[in-house]
Amino acid sequence: MSDLSSNIAAWMTVIQRRTETALDHCLPPAALAPTRLHEAMRYSVLGGGKRMRPLLCHAAGEALGADPRVVDTAACAVELIHAYSLVHDDMPCMDDDALRRGRPTCHVEFDEATALLVGDALQTQAFQLLAESELPLITPSCQRRLSMLALLAHAAGSRGMAGGQAIDLAAVGMALTVEELEFMHIHKTGALIRAAVLLGAHCGDADDATLQALGHYANRAGLLFQVVDDILDAESNTATLGKTAGKDAANDKPTYVSMLGLTRAKELCARLRAEAHEALDACLLDTGRLAGLTDYIAERTF
Amino acid sequence: MSDLSSNIAAWMTVIQRRTETALDHCLPPAALAPTRLHEAMRYSVLGGGKRMRPLLCHAAGEALGADPRVVDTAACAVELIHAYSLVHDDMPCMDDDALRRGRPTCHVEFDEATALLVGDALQTQAFQLLAESELPLITPSCQRRLSMLALLAHAAGSRGMAGGQAIDLAAVGMALTVEELEFMHIHKTGALIRAAVLLGAHCGDADDATLQALGHYANRAGLLFQVVDDILDAESNTATLGKTAGKDAANDKPTYVSMLGLTRAKELCARLRAEAHEALDACLLDTGRLAGLTDYIAERTF
Repeated sequence: MSDLSSNIAAWMTVIQRRTETALDHCLPPAALAPTRLHEAMRYSVLGGGKRMRPLLCHAAGEALGADPRVVDTAACAVELIHAYSLVHDDMPCMDDDALRRGRPTCHVEFDEATALLVGDALQTQAFQLLAESELPLITPSCQRRLSMLALLAHAAGSRGMAGGQAIDLAAVGMALTVEELEFMHIHKTGALIRAAVLLGAHCGDADDATLQALGHYANRAGLLFQVVDDILDAESNTATLGKTAGKDAANDKPTYVSMLGLTRAKELCARLRAEAHEALDACLLDTGRLAGLTDYIAERTF
Repeated sequence: MSDLSSNIAAWMTVIQRRTETALDHCLPPAALAPTRLHEAMRYSVLGGGKRMRPLLCHAAGEALGADPRVVDTAACAVELIHAYSLVHDDMPCMDDDALRRGRPTCHVEFDEATALLVGDALQTQAFQLLAESELPLITPSCQRRLSMLALLAHAAGSRGMAGGQAIDLAAVGMALTVEELEFMHIHKTGALIRAAVLLGAHCGDADDATLQALGHYANRAGLLFQVVDDILDAESNTATLGKTAGKDAANDKPTYVSMLGLTRAKELCARLRAEAHEALDACLLDTGRLAGLTDYIAERTF
């Protein structure tokens, strides 16, 4: 392991730990009624996950000199949206998946109705967290917080993540072009990754030019994340991934691997990684953490 | 029809029409990709419903001298949350209902996966609407808008409406006390009705004492709405209701009628109606619209 990669690995562990603590604090206690719902919410959010979106949020916040306690709120809000989408995505009427993060999915561990409500309530909790002021002295100004709420909502909604899932549903068994596949992923996973980066930047003192450059970076990093995901889904086994491997092919879903083949998919990764780094260089900030995360995303094996 | 009731009926028609227009404007056009999702979102929100929550929101706004164009935003946000909850509540894993507002439910007209995403995206849209500033000159201050976002989120989430649905699920086949039934309804329907009233008041210049008095009113009005709903469910037929009649009994769900009997349930209505009016009198405002709506809720037949 090089010095740089051991450096980013140590930083990731620190951020993952503080994110776990922050998520634990922002979720209702399991002892609070309705206890089964709150238990299922905590089960679905805590104790697993790479926390890629909180990591990107903190890395962007660090580049802008943001207070990490403020970034925690934004990072948790994004992660709650991500967690809600996984719970709903795993349900029988969607991907019908039994395994997530090495454990039974929410509807398997609890039941379908509870999983539906868990996803609903986690989404609400994300917006509640951004709207409620628990750190009044250090939070961004209220106008900025409204912008952050609007940004997260736009990324999560029908013109973002939820829209991407609808496009994904419609694409099953279809012959897509690579451009159409990219359009789907820009919505389905890209929108929330972009939101993670921009929310982190909003926690600092980002001007419009910086936000634009970081948005361009996030678009490349988001696609890179997805192409790597497709490669891992094709190459790995279930035990390594902690979720069902090979399910895209089994579900007849178009992926970068099924459309480009493994070799060209890996070439695409290399190009996206280079473009992501170029976008960071254009920011004229100390974006070392974002650069390190980009390399981690490109090289990850699970 | 008395002068007073014809007066409130005419006002209700005006508000229902402006709400329909406002909802139409705040939903993405059906021609925008993903078109099936946007079509299903519009199907689930437009062209039906009593718009009770927007009516309460506007009535409270009027009592506080709020600009009705500002109230439109709050009213739509509450109605989108309500609409999302109906779409998810009707799904097979919840109440499994085929009829809503006289039409096939969303998952019947489209499919289950689309209905899941419709509910998800409508919830997001509600928060996006409150967060985005389209009327900068006349909207409430940004601090107040953050309070409104937090209020709506709290009412919709696991400690409000979604929590009430979880309690409802757990109550099927259980022997509840009337106090436990009230606890469920205060969450399941009461929280959002209270939010509708308080958001309307927030659009005007409401002080804390007024918000407290209106909150007390809304608690009574919300329960009144639910008890009347239970009575109508027991007494009406499906054609009149526009949704499946008698389903509470068929689903072995506790209701005020099943627990108290019809006579005592009607006595409870009369008491809640009187208490709601008393709470309005304590506001020391011109709450004529809220009073008229309370009488409408108590006397409604569908």
